[in-house]
Amino acid sequence: AAATPALAANAGASPAPVVTAAAAPAKAAGPDVKVKFKGGPEVTTSDGWAFKLGGRLNLDAGYIDAPDSLGPSDGFGSEVRRARLRVTGKIPGGFGYKFETEFAPGAADFTDAYVSYQDGGLTIEAGQHNTFQGLEELSSSLNTSFIERAAYTDAFNFERRIGISAQYSTGDLLLQGGIFSDNAEDTPNKNFSVDTRVVYAPKIGSAQVHLGGSYHYAKLPEQGSAVRYRQRPFEHFTSTRYINTGLFSADAEIGYGLESAVIAGRFHASAEGHWQHVSRPVGDADPTFFGGAIEVGYFLTGGDTRGYKHGTFDRVKPARPVGEGGFGALQLNLRYDYLDLTDAGIVGGSQKGYEASLIWTQTDYTRLMLNYARLDYTDAFYQTADGSRSYGVDVIAMRAQVDF
Amino acid sequence: AAATPALAANAGASPAPVVTAAAAPAKAAGPDVKVKFKGGPEVTTSDGWAFKLGGRLNLDAGYIDAPDSLGPSDGFGSEVRRARLRVTGKIPGGFGYKFETEFAPGAADFTDAYVSYQDGGLTIEAGQHNTFQGLEELSSSLNTSFIERAAYTDAFNFERRIGISAQYSTGDLLLQGGIFSDNAEDTPNKNFSVDTRVVYAPKIGSAQVHLGGSYHYAKLPEQGSAVRYRQRPFEHFTSTRYINTGLFSADAEIGYGLESAVIAGRFHASAEGHWQHVSRPVGDADPTFFGGAIEVGYFLTGGDTRGYKHGTFDRVKPARPVGEGGFGALQLNLRYDYLDLTDAGIVGGSQKGYEASLIWTQTDYTRLMLNYARLDYTDAFYQTADGSRSYGVDVIAMRAQVDF
Amino acid sequence: AAATPALAANAGASPAPVVTAAAAPAKAAGPDVKVKFKGGPEVTTSDGWAFKLGGRLNLDAGYIDAPDSLGPSDGFGSEVRRARLRVTGKIPGGFGYKFETEFAPGAADFTDAYVSYQDGGLTIEAGQHNTFQGLEELSSSLNTSFIERAAYTDAFNFERRIGISAQYSTGDLLLQGGIFSDNAEDTPNKNFSVDTRVVYAPKIGSAQVHLGGSYHYAKLPEQGSAVRYRQRPFEHFTSTRYINTGLFSADAEIGYGLESAVIAGRFHASAEGHWQHVSRPVGDADPTFFGGAIEVGYFLTGGDTRGYKHGTFDRVKPARPVGEGGFGALQLNLRYDYLDLTDAGIVGGSQKGYEASLIWTQTDYTRLMLNYARLDYTDAFYQTADGSRSYGVDVIAMRAQVDF
Repeated sequence: AAATPALAANAGASPAPVVTAAAAPAKAAGPDVKVKFKGGPEVTTSDGWAFKLGGRLNLDAGYIDAPDSLGPSDGFGSEVRRARLRVTGKIPGGFGYKFETEFAPGAADFTDAYVSYQDGGLTIEAGQHNTFQGLEELSSSLNTSFIERAAYTDAFNFERRIGISAQYSTGDLLLQGGIFSDNAEDTPNKNFSVDTRVVYAPKIGSAQVHLGGSYHYAKLPEQGSAVRYRQRPFEHFTSTRYINTGLFSADAEIGYGLESAVIAGRFHASAEGHWQHVSRPVGDADPTFFGGAIEVGYFLTGGDTRGYKHGTFDRVKPARPVGEGGFGALQLNLRYDYLDLTDAGIVGGSQKGYEASLIWTQTDYTRLMLNYARLDYTDAFYQTADGSRSYGVDVIAMRAQVDF
Repeated sequence: AAATPALAANAGASPAPVVTAAAAPAKAAGPDVKVKFKGGPEVTTSDGWAFKLGGRLNLDAGYIDAPDSLGPSDGFGSEVRRARLRVTGKIPGGFGYKFETEFAPGAADFTDAYVSYQDGGLTIEAGQHNTFQGLEELSSSLNTSFIERAAYTDAFNFERRIGISAQYSTGDLLLQGGIFSDNAEDTPNKNFSVDTRVVYAPKIGSAQVHLGGSYHYAKLPEQGSAVRYRQRPFEHFTSTRYINTGLFSADAEIGYGLESAVIAGRFHASAEGHWQHVSRPVGDADPTFFGGAIEVGYFLTGGDTRGYKHGTFDRVKPARPVGEGGFGALQLNLRYDYLDLTDAGIVGGSQKGYEASLIWTQTDYTRLMLNYARLDYTDAFYQTADGSRSYGVDVIAMRAQVDF
Repeated sequence: AAATPALAANAGASPAPVVTAAAAPAKAAGPDVKVKFKGGPEVTTSDGWAFKLGGRLNLDAGYIDAPDSLGPSDGFGSEVRRARLRVTGKIPGGFGYKFETEFAPGAADFTDAYVSYQDGGLTIEAGQHNTFQGLEELSSSLNTSFIERAAYTDAFNFERRIGISAQYSTGDLLLQGGIFSDNAEDTPNKNFSVDTRVVYAPKIGSAQVHLGGSYHYAKLPEQGSAVRYRQRPFEHFTSTRYINTGLFSADAEIGYGLESAVIAGRFHASAEGHWQHVSRPVGDADPTFFGGAIEVGYFLTGGDTRGYKHGTFDRVKPARPVGEGGFGALQLNLRYDYLDLTDAGIVGGSQKGYEASLIWTQTDYTRLMLNYARLDYTDAFYQTADGSRSYGVDVIAMRAQVDF
């Protein structure tokens, strides 16, 4: 009978040593080790250790229909868009780490590779991580509402960089800032950037509101630095970019971002914009490029909603998943995806993208996506047979996704 | 006393939360999480989740003895033949995934990278996976009876490809078919293939019989496509190929495979053949190349047999493993390994391979292999000092293998 | 009441099935599976299986201050120095394996990739592993007392190689020897080496003493082989080497190493030296280069000491870690790091390095390191604007480290 309370204390969803007060005092027995299951197993201890191995697969196929007699022709394509493994962990004292590897044919890389320290609302991270670019960029690709993020997020070369940052969260306010060098692929180099972001995310009634802004300053190496802004036509498998500034000399990049979003039950909307100003050597005019996107989405299945956490969109967890007799969550999203790479004498072209996304989320960890995009280009990089640089490209994209 | 049945219910081989009916009803406690050990740990839950991290090491050394004064000279060589990590998992609702990475010096890649859906005998897979090439190719390299598969499996470029497939298993019958583009290393490209296979695998008395056939059609991109069929002399560490068609123009590849095998206690035999027909541009004759192998094997240790599962050879599990006081399993295999790459004006040469394999399987997850091959070439790619293209090459190959 | 002893037997730090003698005999229940936590989870079974997934992150930043107008200029730099995942396991019967992958931008590789067999004091390893080079080289980079090992360990190209080795440990004596080909990156080639090492490591009072010597013979391929010895200025992120023999013809490398160390409570000291003799083709004089280092270290925090195991330095485990209300361990180390690459007509230059290291080890699995090095070069590879090849370089290096 004496054993019963001790046993009850172990009645959670995870394995744990069984301790009876008389036979083995908890102290002598050491910390409890528990195994939970969140897509994959997570191991935690009662004294503050945690470890999880995770990963993701994004399997893509699609079709790009561009006007005849353009140089490159795409048509059907397929790829393993993302194949990643990830370890995350916690160490007593507030320490933590994340290390994610990306596998591509013939190559491997890492995305996040950092250590962290947390104390209350304060988090410090050192290593390679994101530079607080904006709402959609910081949201995991597992949780975005389109197969590819808005065009400007790639065009302006948003990427993880090696650096050190601090984040402070208090109530509805989130402050983020860090100093960075460059992506590990490009180090050692002489880049130096300061990146900051502020988010105000109150709950208004049952609606989650998100308002944010970010500022970015990157000093490039002194001599001979150049930048290039360009973007693929929605599909990642192609190397064709219809919009492309080409390389041009630069001293520094200054970016300003504005973010807004609302999640209200089955409905969500978001609007983001980013101004990329380039400081060029004496004698060259400084351009400012702009990209932005507005999207709305609605779940056709009742009870479903987009997740939101720590200033980013989080996972959709279907109210009635397939494994429990339901259909999962079905979401329809529409987006206007604008990017203008022409300014101050640099003619990179502009894109007006009209995009639709249907997402079937069967379980918390799987989804199928079907996207359509109509991309209208002006001053495109490639010209048609009749010499036109203003034309449209149609894209169908599909993805099967799993993570663990 | 009330706790005893609940405890007993947890008396399996794996950790599990301890629930007493009175203190914490099972429903509130969430699903049970169990950790089993199959080479490595596998974590499962009572509501249908599963996760396993696995992998393999193939450590090879060998010697290639070719006639003097041939161009390339090999002699002794060694390599880490396979170094792989793998995650596999199940998600309630019938979903699953497999993601396997291959590490090589200075590079990494993935082999399988797919998601799956299973309902009864039906399995659908999307992503990169095998194209139902044949018995030996589809059997894991962990379970083959020689260090390298028969020459034609490499020569005809059997590989995993990105695609979608369906498999249906009913009684002794297995039907497989899919449409594929290309290996992720080669995408994006315009390849398109249809691959099908049927297997009939009845038990006749205590013997496992396997009969199968496969058909493969691959349409190559329209302009300028070429193929090349060639094969190393049994050892993978060399880049010398004595048999080699060189590149030649091609429009499509059509493959026909026949498979047969029997496993009867300590004895097994198998015979496979594959005809590779190449459709060439107008004006060029279409060749059909053939490769095939016949093998027999016998366990010198009593009670041992080859595993068989889902239309492929499965793991050997020694009846008396080393860790439990036994010697493990000792198996002797002989193979005739034929490949003819000469037809319709293309002279790639032919190989008659006489091969022997001794395998010591200490435990379910370790084995040492010693192989000998005598390869007699006709019309070989390299000629000897006296101008001959018909000669023999002797090969010794060793492997230490572990998986988990 | 009958259940109590069985429960007590499971009262360790890890989950385990709960077995009651009456309800489920242990035999029927299969082996116990336990999950322990050592930085990350380790899964073991009562019948001798074990599996652990681990890894490490080394996140570096630093500054190299070299005289003006030298060719390459470094200044600030940062990198992900090491990002590794590792699996290790045991299989009943004495078998084991280790497989560690290293991720770098755009590439991946493996470090250790071997299988092992252990019987009492005897261990046999086959696959890629270290060649018994010496105390600091064989100590894990997690446990060294400086951010980078002494200059000679890189200069003389210490690396893991594919081979087979035996180690025998008896009392205070450790004997190691193996035959190797080359690193997997360089295979197939014709290198062949014999590497041996002997260590005598008695406890004298409470002090751990370490004395050792090693011998290495590497036969290079017969025609056209060349070697090059060079080293970076302490920081790994740079590709500038101030000390560099350039490539020169060689037939064989013969290495002799001497090792000594003592650990006495908070204090440790070590001295190592390595002579690298190169046998050159007839007509060229054979040089012998020398590198060595002497270091002393002291923990400013009471109760802390360096770990020592199996002939190498082991992990520092702070007596009062941060997560348990302490400050962790604070260690100060000084080193003289000498390398002479000039002999027998080859002028590679020499380095006298004066180095200091401050290490804050918060927990068993995290540390922050701050290093300073003053490197005085003679006959350096690069010359200053005024033509001097004798000058000093100052280096600041920082590292954040976590492993699991």
